[in-house]
Amino acid sequence: MKLAPALQYSHELLKNTVRPGETVVDATVGNGHDTQFLAELVGNSGQVLGFDIQPAAIQATTTRLAAANLQNVSLYQTGHQNVDQYLSTDLSAAIFNLGYLPSGDKSVITHGQTTIEAVQKMLPHLRTEGLICLVVYYGHPGGNDERIAVEKFTATLPQKEFNVLEYQFVNQAHTPPKLIVIQKR
Amino acid sequence: MKLAPALQYSHELLKNTVRPGETVVDATVGNGHDTQFLAELVGNSGQVLGFDIQPAAIQATTTRLAAANLQNVSLYQTGHQNVDQYLSTDLSAAIFNLGYLPSGDKSVITHGQTTIEAVQKMLPHLRTEGLICLVVYYGHPGGNDERIAVEKFTATLPQKEFNVLEYQFVNQAHTPPKLIVIQKR
Repeated sequence: MKLAPALQYSHELLKNTVRPGETVVDATVGNGHDTQFLAELVGNSGQVLGFDIQPAAIQATTTRLAAANLQNVSLYQTGHQNVDQYLSTDLSAAIFNLGYLPSGDKSVITHGQTTIEAVQKMLPHLRTEGLICLVVYYGHPGGNDERIAVEKFTATLPQKEFNVLEYQFVNQAHTPPKLIVIQKR
Repeated sequence: MKLAPALQYSHELLKNTVRPGETVVDATVGNGHDTQFLAELVGNSGQVLGFDIQPAAIQATTTRLAAANLQNVSLYQTGHQNVDQYLSTDLSAAIFNLGYLPSGDKSVITHGQTTIEAVQKMLPHLRTEGLICLVVYYGHPGGNDERIAVEKFTATLPQKEFNVLEYQFVNQAHTPPKLIVIQKR
């Protein structure tokens, strides 16, 4: 068994957490890989709320979901820090892929401040044992600043309410993504 | 599903890696919990080599193994840095619990230099996808120095030969153990 890379490990945790019928958030839909994964986990009786500021991401994800015949996703072309305007129920999980859109405009990146704001707005909705997974790519300009801001924020979440796990490969020349997981206790 | 604490996660990884008939090392047998766990994983056709410098640890573990009727363990009352004198076969896994003997003499602790020496001597024996798990307790005097030394050593292992994973809860007032895993590629 090979040790799971960060993104794969986040999917293993989500598979063990998310149940059919639940509500989940894809905070950075990108090309829609995670959106589809989450839509399949929650099934027809559940729902995915997906956020991205880039039209190309919304378009690519719409196409992907249609091809997979998945109709339980609501996509919003807006920043994930506006999640509170769309979220009214309990949340079992959320995923963020921090960085830029793969094969998109590399100058459009996620930022620590809005990432943290989105997390803060989701935390009160998170059910017991629910997860927020932050897959932090930080090899690009601006990435390290966001990583540091997110680490600082998550490391100080109250331990009576949340467990925060960091999962990271450390002996690599290039910077593979680091996974930060917040679990509601 | 609750996120697994460090020691529990190391056991999950070992369960998914170690096969009956293989050779494994418990580098710090302590009260023998991990020794028994490993002995059950490798079964009668496998073997566990167990190391501890303290007579109390060897005695407690001998008693535990006898009660469980496990006869596939060789215990050595010597430092784990001497592992090379006893290891002649391929190794599928090793575990270290760094710190002091629970309910024992808290002034007798593991040290970075000998821990690293033990790891260095085992790495050439490690089979592909084999694991060395270091469960690093570091809340005691001297613990932080060992943690830093081990992190520095493991983070610079050549990435063509090994993957090194760090797994750690970060928002806790007390210092829960941190898991460092070395996997042979």
